[in-house]
Amino acid sequence: MTLQPSDKALVPFVSVDHMMQLIHHIGVEEMLRGLAGYIEEDFRRWQLFDKTPRVASHSAEGVIELMPTSDGEVYGFKYVNGHPKNTAEGLQTVTAFGLLADVGTGYPVLLTEMTMLTAMRTAATSALVAKLLAPAGATTMAMIGNGAQSEFQSLAMKAVLGLKEVRLYDTDPAATRKCAANLAGSGLRVVSCDSAEEAIMGAQILTTCTADKQYATILTDNMVGAGVHINAIGGDCPGKTELAPAILTRSEIFVEYPEQTRIEGEIQQLAPEHPVTEIWEVLTGAKPGRTSERQITLFDSVGFAIEDFSALRFVRDRIGDTGLFHPLDLLADPDDPRDLFGMLQRAK
Amino acid sequence: MTLQPSDKALVPFVSVDHMMQLIHHIGVEEMLRGLAGYIEEDFRRWQLFDKTPRVASHSAEGVIELMPTSDGEVYGFKYVNGHPKNTAEGLQTVTAFGLLADVGTGYPVLLTEMTMLTAMRTAATSALVAKLLAPAGATTMAMIGNGAQSEFQSLAMKAVLGLKEVRLYDTDPAATRKCAANLAGSGLRVVSCDSAEEAIMGAQILTTCTADKQYATILTDNMVGAGVHINAIGGDCPGKTELAPAILTRSEIFVEYPEQTRIEGEIQQLAPEHPVTEIWEVLTGAKPGRTSERQITLFDSVGFAIEDFSALRFVRDRIGDTGLFHPLDLLADPDDPRDLFGMLQRAK
Repeated sequence: MTLQPSDKALVPFVSVDHMMQLIHHIGVEEMLRGLAGYIEEDFRRWQLFDKTPRVASHSAEGVIELMPTSDGEVYGFKYVNGHPKNTAEGLQTVTAFGLLADVGTGYPVLLTEMTMLTAMRTAATSALVAKLLAPAGATTMAMIGNGAQSEFQSLAMKAVLGLKEVRLYDTDPAATRKCAANLAGSGLRVVSCDSAEEAIMGAQILTTCTADKQYATILTDNMVGAGVHINAIGGDCPGKTELAPAILTRSEIFVEYPEQTRIEGEIQQLAPEHPVTEIWEVLTGAKPGRTSERQITLFDSVGFAIEDFSALRFVRDRIGDTGLFHPLDLLADPDDPRDLFGMLQRAK
Repeated sequence: MTLQPSDKALVPFVSVDHMMQLIHHIGVEEMLRGLAGYIEEDFRRWQLFDKTPRVASHSAEGVIELMPTSDGEVYGFKYVNGHPKNTAEGLQTVTAFGLLADVGTGYPVLLTEMTMLTAMRTAATSALVAKLLAPAGATTMAMIGNGAQSEFQSLAMKAVLGLKEVRLYDTDPAATRKCAANLAGSGLRVVSCDSAEEAIMGAQILTTCTADKQYATILTDNMVGAGVHINAIGGDCPGKTELAPAILTRSEIFVEYPEQTRIEGEIQQLAPEHPVTEIWEVLTGAKPGRTSERQITLFDSVGFAIEDFSALRFVRDRIGDTGLFHPLDLLADPDDPRDLFGMLQRAK
């Protein structure tokens, strides 16, 4: 008689520490490229996916969400919270973990931290889309909002798109100093700016990623000239936007999943029938991306479950030979499935 | 500089092995009574709960479900699969795990296996309801279907209601032998029967818990006399029922959550407006339970998220002083919440 759980009962678990080791083992930029590849692959087979809307539990302090999806063979979900006031208590605003399971048996096959992984996949998605939509030869990005996502965005644009220069601005100069210090030695030319206006000078890509939970105007209409790509990350929940509405009406707008973006994204400021293009339609060639040099393209990014699914697949495929996981005794697996009680008795 | 995760980043994880140890540490019957108490407490404050319907991902082989709920202070969800063909491959038909989180911060506070725990809470719920509805002095139960849930049902009825005798029947005699062997020494008088008719002789409580995923007739109309309580466990998904419709129309029907039971329970065989009473209404005194000795009461049990929530609360409250958990490095928690990338760099 053995009390050791069987292999079937063990689920590989990737802790925060293991995730950080995995990122360094692969290399930050190489992993960002790899994630962009997996996300592109899944966006290209978009119509295969079971696209359940996220299930949100709202409270006065924030929101807890479950984001499930499935491609018919693999099932994944992410648990993620959003609590803006957490920072004041020294906690993360957003934490996350995720799971992959085999659709055929329902057995989980991976449990992993997803705070780090979400930061990576969000940046990889932005870079994938910027590569698709930014004007040819884009090498300079304005990075407005220098919080937790800013370094990931900058490095993903370098890794996927060949970005050379990032121009930083944040209302809090300490955030800009932190971001600049973290990017030192990355190979990017880093310019710290005193205003958003200064940051966007010469930039073909404008990334906004601020944290205020309110209708804010990070970019005003007169700041945005022709022929740029706007990568709007921070407007990602009802009541939280970053762009002046006039910018939206001058732009060709690209989204992940309109049903979700119309509630959570910048376009919550527009009429529900305002035309948008889905990223997967551009990737598959069903619809055009950028059609002229002078066009303003806008990626109204809110983050979608399929990106998490791609990231989970990437981790599942890459941890095997690294040993960067713990086997977790998560599933009761008695020798005789009908004899759960016997298993309990034998453990006495 | 420390690379150890902070306390905030660590989530207590109860493995299958630890759960079995916890059950024995508390005692099976004592824990069943404790769970029934927690479930009763939560049913009494039913209207406080955020009752999101379960989110199901169906496939040809089975279903994967997320069952979230919240009382406004604590959030919980259970992951559970149902794959009837798994048994043939030596896998569990149903496996589960669950999580509790703090609504105020969104931080998880408990991750636990829930295959064992679900078996315990299902039995505790049945016993709580039988104590409420069964005729006075009920001491004998017919247990039809002697699979994984049968021992838990029998012991919960003993612990909560004072059951003295259980009469076992299964179409597979091996299942009955297994159940009888597991219950030997429990203090229950165990009678193995050759037919369902024999099993129900003298029983005031009729429990059906079979596993066929189909419309089956485990109890026919003529088998059910006056003055009994039927505890129908096995009819728990669309297309799967156990009772002849004529029994339903002769019974006063009690359910957990009508919106869910009308889809998944025995009453999927009835018109959608057929009257049912909710268990919480009986517990709070808003509606009567059993009103006569000769009445047939029927608990059409499908399992509801609040019962899992109660079970998770129970485990959270009881593991503290036992050490029966592992601290899991699930949440990235940098010293400066805006410096996630710095945390990653320092881990290099």
